Amino acid sequence: MSLNYRIIFHLMGLLLLCNGGFMIIAAIFSGIYNDGATLDITLAAIVTMIIGTLSMFLTRGHKKEVKKKEGYIIVTGGWLVMSLSGVLPYLFSGAIPDFTNAFFETISGYTTTGASILDDIEALPEGILFWRSLTHWIGGMGIIVLAIAILPLLGIGGMQLFAAEAPGPSSDKLHPRITDTAKRLWLIYFGYTVAETILLKLAGMSFFDAINHSLATLSTGGFSTKNLSTAYWNDQPLIQYIIILFMFLAGSNFVLSYYAFKGKVQKILFDEEFKFYTIFVVGFTIVSALVVYFKANVAVSEYHPMIWGEAESAFRHSLFQVLSVITTTGFVTADFTNWTHFLTIFYFGLFFLGGCAGSTSGGIKVMRHLLIIKNGLLEFKRTLHSNAVIPVRYNNKTVREHIVYNIIAFFVLYMLMFIIGSLVLGALGLDFESAIGGAASSLGNVGPGLGSLNPLSNFNGLPALGKWWCGFLMLLGRLELFTVLILFTPYFWKKI
Amino acid sequence: MSLNYRIIFHLMGLLLLCNGGFMIIAAIFSGIYNDGATLDITLAAIVTMIIGTLSMFLTRGHKKEVKKKEGYIIVTGGWLVMSLSGVLPYLFSGAIPDFTNAFFETISGYTTTGASILDDIEALPEGILFWRSLTHWIGGMGIIVLAIAILPLLGIGGMQLFAAEAPGPSSDKLHPRITDTAKRLWLIYFGYTVAETILLKLAGMSFFDAINHSLATLSTGGFSTKNLSTAYWNDQPLIQYIIILFMFLAGSNFVLSYYAFKGKVQKILFDEEFKFYTIFVVGFTIVSALVVYFKANVAVSEYHPMIWGEAESAFRHSLFQVLSVITTTGFVTADFTNWTHFLTIFYFGLFFLGGCAGSTSGGIKVMRHLLIIKNGLLEFKRTLHSNAVIPVRYNNKTVREHIVYNIIAFFVLYMLMFIIGSLVLGALGLDFESAIGGAASSLGNVGPGLGSLNPLSNFNGLPALGKWWCGFLMLLGRLELFTVLILFTPYFWKKI
Ligand SMILES: [K+]
Ligand SMILES: [K+]
Repeated sequence: MSLNYRIIFHLMGLLLLCNGGFMIIAAIFSGIYNDGATLDITLAAIVTMIIGTLSMFLTRGHKKEVKKKEGYIIVTGGWLVMSLSGVLPYLFSGAIPDFTNAFFETISGYTTTGASILDDIEALPEGILFWRSLTHWIGGMGIIVLAIAILPLLGIGGMQLFAAEAPGPSSDKLHPRITDTAKRLWLIYFGYTVAETILLKLAGMSFFDAINHSLATLSTGGFSTKNLSTAYWNDQPLIQYIIILFMFLAGSNFVLSYYAFKGKVQKILFDEEFKFYTIFVVGFTIVSALVVYFKANVAVSEYHPMIWGEAESAFRHSLFQVLSVITTTGFVTADFTNWTHFLTIFYFGLFFLGGCAGSTSGGIKVMRHLLIIKNGLLEFKRTLHSNAVIPVRYNNKTVREHIVYNIIAFFVLYMLMFIIGSLVLGALGLDFESAIGGAASSLGNVGPGLGSLNPLSNFNGLPALGKWWCGFLMLLGRLELFTVLILFTPYFWKKI
Repeated sequence: MSLNYRIIFHLMGLLLLCNGGFMIIAAIFSGIYNDGATLDITLAAIVTMIIGTLSMFLTRGHKKEVKKKEGYIIVTGGWLVMSLSGVLPYLFSGAIPDFTNAFFETISGYTTTGASILDDIEALPEGILFWRSLTHWIGGMGIIVLAIAILPLLGIGGMQLFAAEAPGPSSDKLHPRITDTAKRLWLIYFGYTVAETILLKLAGMSFFDAINHSLATLSTGGFSTKNLSTAYWNDQPLIQYIIILFMFLAGSNFVLSYYAFKGKVQKILFDEEFKFYTIFVVGFTIVSALVVYFKANVAVSEYHPMIWGEAESAFRHSLFQVLSVITTTGFVTADFTNWTHFLTIFYFGLFFLGGCAGSTSGGIKVMRHLLIIKNGLLEFKRTLHSNAVIPVRYNNKTVREHIVYNIIAFFVLYMLMFIIGSLVLGALGLDFESAIGGAASSLGNVGPGLGSLNPLSNFNGLPALGKWWCGFLMLLGRLELFTVLILFTPYFWKKI
């Protein structure tokens, strides 16, 4: 059985066509703000759409059937094709003239990582900044389809577990499930984005900043239009609380939001992952806030203006940073690597957590941690009772053994890629803390790292190879490892 | 079914009696060198033996039967009882007057970690230094029994896998297997120690240094009698090559040595773990040597005298440090955290490797890594073929699923304890690199850490709580996590 390359190229063409369409929106934005980049962005859109149309035209009359193996190629290829075409607005406008830098910024966008190479963000034309935020939002749309419709069918990392809960017809065919489920959840995604934009505008942000930050929040991306990131609004707590609310929503399962709007609140109350996601956010915020309040001497810092008192400041910055890291958004209101040694390690640990499955967040994700911890505790019981068969339960259902296996294998692979990721960054000259933080952050699609890649710094200091490597790690993490790595195994290319 | 506490206390008494006997040997050493500590060590021996005899006397007439649950208590309790009594020579002689420090040094000894709080090792009486090395060697004896006879029966971390290969009668009862298997392997352990002592003496070491370093090599402990550790002999390559040879043996499975002496060389050639252990050592040495030679500017360093040229120096120090870290011996000929950023991360990664199962080394161990990697690769195959049952094979045999499960759970638990370990050290004020390095090193029973705990430094700068915490991590790592942690689970204390 050989691969159906025609449909692969056909779908890549379709993606390019859509991407060109999105560029048009950015061009319109550029035109409204009269930022001088309108023609360049339009040109990028035209080039992208022409290539897309050509690719679709040349592969017309393909067989409609997409099998598992083609699925892996389409997912990885799709993200690459988007990133390769997404650089055009940067290159054509000269906003980011260097290809490596432009590609880094773009893949960081589509993977919703939000690590940036820009030293002066505010110097860029509005249309380009909007395009930058839009790459996040497009990436987020992709992730929703991926998590809810594609990965479960491809059998990746335990995603089967909650796919059963997703709305839409339950079918084994890719096509109807994708279109039907995706449409419902995209509507919620779109609605949340509009809601956040309105609230931020009402709270005092400019419309431009409001829409950009909303695009970057719901996708858990983290690009900001300000050099200071969200620390720019440290004197306006209300704005930060609004972002906090939407980060929390973006890191939760969109399927639950869907049920909430359908009035089925019990679905949320009985969801184990949501419960622990909330517990983690609250618990870790308390720990961080107490340490910041009693141990970190930030009272006098420029970044922590005491608008509503020192306690509120410690609480808000902790809540914001905990959510920003757990949901892997990566917005920055304060440099957590500068609070205390303990909090540096603490937040580094949170790089690995991730939000809920079915959200746009990266990382390992709460569901997987829960299953791994449950299985670990049961292992003690199994050890005592001579390896009796004691299954793991999740949301009151027994989890099939091979799914637990799959999740643990994901965890091990994640750790392995983290170690290799750190080693490569170390080989490229980064010191211990920067290398380890950079690898963990890229793999988890968080954004800010540690050391020289700390939240107030950026990734521009990396050597070119380091930028490519981090981009690879972002893609790997974003596509749940297996989807990308499976393409490198001999099993994949064997004809059976 | 209630626990048979009488036999637990009886065996603790027996251990104390043995430990007192070992102290007598140290006292004799002390007398020969006339170091002024002879009476103190003798007093420590007498106190220990009296308590041991009392405990045995009071629990005479116990039921002989040891069940699984008592097994866990005996193992953890045994190491604690040894450590608590092992402090006496330090305290009585005033060599280490502080209890926390003395306990740290002792548990670091018995767990064969080799982390020290001594600022000036050479100032100590010979008898005390010998006792210090002896705690390593006693710990090593304990580990051999543990790994080959006890842990497999307790069902810990996949140790069942190679227990089938161990010599001696295969029985499910603890008693005959322990005595029979242990005796054969202890003989090899003892023989290697004697052989290394003789070779080191012939190569130019003093007898005292030779025997101490042999005790610390075969147990993969790493205490040295010199402040510079084995870097003291950086101008005598032959001595270091001898230590290299015995580190390699100490990190390999003693069961294989047994078969080698029986003439069954094919057992070694067909052992998968030994093959990869060798490949790892050779491969990692090559990487390290190339980086040291071409990138690290050590040509002029005092620690790297060019006795046999710069290339040999780079090779020797790399081989020495790779073996020292992989076998978790922790001897130091050069500060690998001072070579390049890449090598710091590289050696940090090796902290997690460990030697072979059935050796005295700590860490995760090669066998577990092999099974985890094999299972991870097969997971790709399972993903492609809709989770078909594809078992892991090891040494040409199918490994039962629950053993693979158990090994992976061990790995996850190891990572979890590493993270918690780092967080606690961070909370105690250690910086990122020191906290992470210290936790990994303690858990893996390596010895030297990173940052402020680098190979040329020691653990004396830790706050008292940090010393206790590191001691706990050492015990945890040494007893393969489950053995200790299971005592903290509710399952354990439930009567069934
Ligand atoms: K992000
Ligand atoms: K050691």
